[in-house]
Amino acid sequence: MSRFFSSKHKNLEPYTPGEQPKDNQYIKLNTNESPYPPSKKAVKCALEAAKRTQLYPDPECSELSTLMARKLGVDREQVLMTNGSDEILNFAFIAFCDNDHPAVFPDISYGFYKVFAEVNSVPYEEIPLNEDFTINVDDYVGIGKNIFIANPNAPTGIALSLCDIEKIVSSNPDNVVVIDEAYVDFGAESAVKLVHKYDNLLVTQTFSKSRSMAGARLGFGVGSKELIADMNTIKYSTNPYNINAMTMAAGIGCLSDEKYTTKNCREIERVRKYTAKELKKLGFELTESMTNFVFAKHPDHDGEKIYSRLKCNGILVRHFDKEKIADYNRITIGTKKQMTTLIETLKKILEEC
Amino acid sequence: MSRFFSSKHKNLEPYTPGEQPKDNQYIKLNTNESPYPPSKKAVKCALEAAKRTQLYPDPECSELSTLMARKLGVDREQVLMTNGSDEILNFAFIAFCDNDHPAVFPDISYGFYKVFAEVNSVPYEEIPLNEDFTINVDDYVGIGKNIFIANPNAPTGIALSLCDIEKIVSSNPDNVVVIDEAYVDFGAESAVKLVHKYDNLLVTQTFSKSRSMAGARLGFGVGSKELIADMNTIKYSTNPYNINAMTMAAGIGCLSDEKYTTKNCREIERVRKYTAKELKKLGFELTESMTNFVFAKHPDHDGEKIYSRLKCNGILVRHFDKEKIADYNRITIGTKKQMTTLIETLKKILEEC
Repeated sequence: MSRFFSSKHKNLEPYTPGEQPKDNQYIKLNTNESPYPPSKKAVKCALEAAKRTQLYPDPECSELSTLMARKLGVDREQVLMTNGSDEILNFAFIAFCDNDHPAVFPDISYGFYKVFAEVNSVPYEEIPLNEDFTINVDDYVGIGKNIFIANPNAPTGIALSLCDIEKIVSSNPDNVVVIDEAYVDFGAESAVKLVHKYDNLLVTQTFSKSRSMAGARLGFGVGSKELIADMNTIKYSTNPYNINAMTMAAGIGCLSDEKYTTKNCREIERVRKYTAKELKKLGFELTESMTNFVFAKHPDHDGEKIYSRLKCNGILVRHFDKEKIADYNRITIGTKKQMTTLIETLKKILEEC
Repeated sequence: MSRFFSSKHKNLEPYTPGEQPKDNQYIKLNTNESPYPPSKKAVKCALEAAKRTQLYPDPECSELSTLMARKLGVDREQVLMTNGSDEILNFAFIAFCDNDHPAVFPDISYGFYKVFAEVNSVPYEEIPLNEDFTINVDDYVGIGKNIFIANPNAPTGIALSLCDIEKIVSSNPDNVVVIDEAYVDFGAESAVKLVHKYDNLLVTQTFSKSRSMAGARLGFGVGSKELIADMNTIKYSTNPYNINAMTMAAGIGCLSDEKYTTKNCREIERVRKYTAKELKKLGFELTESMTNFVFAKHPDHDGEKIYSRLKCNGILVRHFDKEKIADYNRITIGTKKQMTTLIETLKKILEEC
């Protein structure tokens, strides 16, 4: 830390992303990436854009926003595209949270909510999940604070019903409720349709998981025109050209190839079922995941040990130190072949222990 | 504005980027873009990266940072790559400025400094330029506040000497001095060499102008390891994957083709001299620009009128409403052919008036 660092950040603990090893030695099941390459249409569009980077990108991101809005059945002014969904989440903290509008979120969820709160000096409260890792909806009903909920939740994979989401949104009319749907495309129900009914709902999604574009950094938010306008004010006050031209073009290409996205998502769901079944055969206990990962523990084996043994065997999964979930590992769903290797490797590891 | 927008932002006035028309009808001399396409090596690298966007980019940006550091003659830990130089400037405001460490900058400079200060609730002061648009160095000597200076300055194009920069940096040892060198590659002297001597100096640069990568969004900061570490803390608390894989790859490709960048910069300097000479023949008065633009007014003609007439004639330049510079237009240096068309068009416009 330098002697110039503002005292307000002295205790700031940044987010730790999952390992991104620079060699390709691992079967990488640790950061919920898609095992499939991006749509060829996305690649083609990105290349065309790459040849013209001497020009600034469209700061309004008009074409992509319009396509996205059409797909979602909302107006163009109800959509804001961002540099990954981390950026729209940060915008929401900057725009809507302050001392009078603190934030709440589950104690086990996307670890970044806490960091966003801290970097923006926003008071926050972490609400414990139930013992079974489900969210206790009543904890959030009429809480009168800005709410951040990942749905499905991470790293548990468990989804709330749309009815439960609506209960939370409708009972907090004077606070913003952010539903972070990074993993919604693998079988859960989106809350986007509720934005027509509630002006306090912001739904965020990403192209990182279901659309194979983690490397391109593209996320977005959907909400009332007024919420989106406020976040545009923040965008134009921090980084107006937040999305580069290649990513913008790739996003447009990707949206013209939704069949490819859907096919990949359905395959990942199939492989998730297969993986869950095989893990259970090995004695693992799993949450009910509606995402592109499973969250699993073994009653007889330490979570961190399984993580380490897998790593020694060339398979990366994600282990969190947090006490409540230290028994678990979050395992991304890769290809069927990768998951078969995972199962075989686990079998070997369990036999050795 | 929604009823949820935090009261701290109620008076926030976002930055207004230059017009980015969606058609290609204009000779675009309004946002200081390069008239040359990006390096072919950059395009090639970007394409390879575009095919693999299912994987997250390297959050440490290791390869690119290492190359950049080597080129600059500093350690890798002294460099932070960002999503355009706007992001590193915003990081500097977030990391180092607060109520006890207000910001100062010239009243005529990059219009975003004021917005960064406001969005981050940082008190600031704008120090008037001299009548001739030069910076009065003594205004900043020992001022005891965090200083943001664009060098060369925009939109005036005027550069401070390294000796003057050092005077400012050395006389404010307990404050961060940010030298924004977005336009340094067109003939001015960089302050990067001073980072070895002063721990309070942060130099920022961009790939947008001299490297034809405005569309790719790539900027960076150079400073002491401690300053860079603080800004990394902010990066990892807001958007760890701030640079997408295609831009990262394009940056690497671009740095392997520095001859191309140098050739383009020298040509732009030649065309700038030609343009200045021709504008003077038409009666224009110009500042001494060391950038890829000129800043010009005509004693007999209103700045906004010239801007509008040029636009009607298919040429976009940038006009600022701010009273002190309302007589002027900022004109990006394009190709020789584009500038010849500009001169011919201005000749016609002046004859008509």
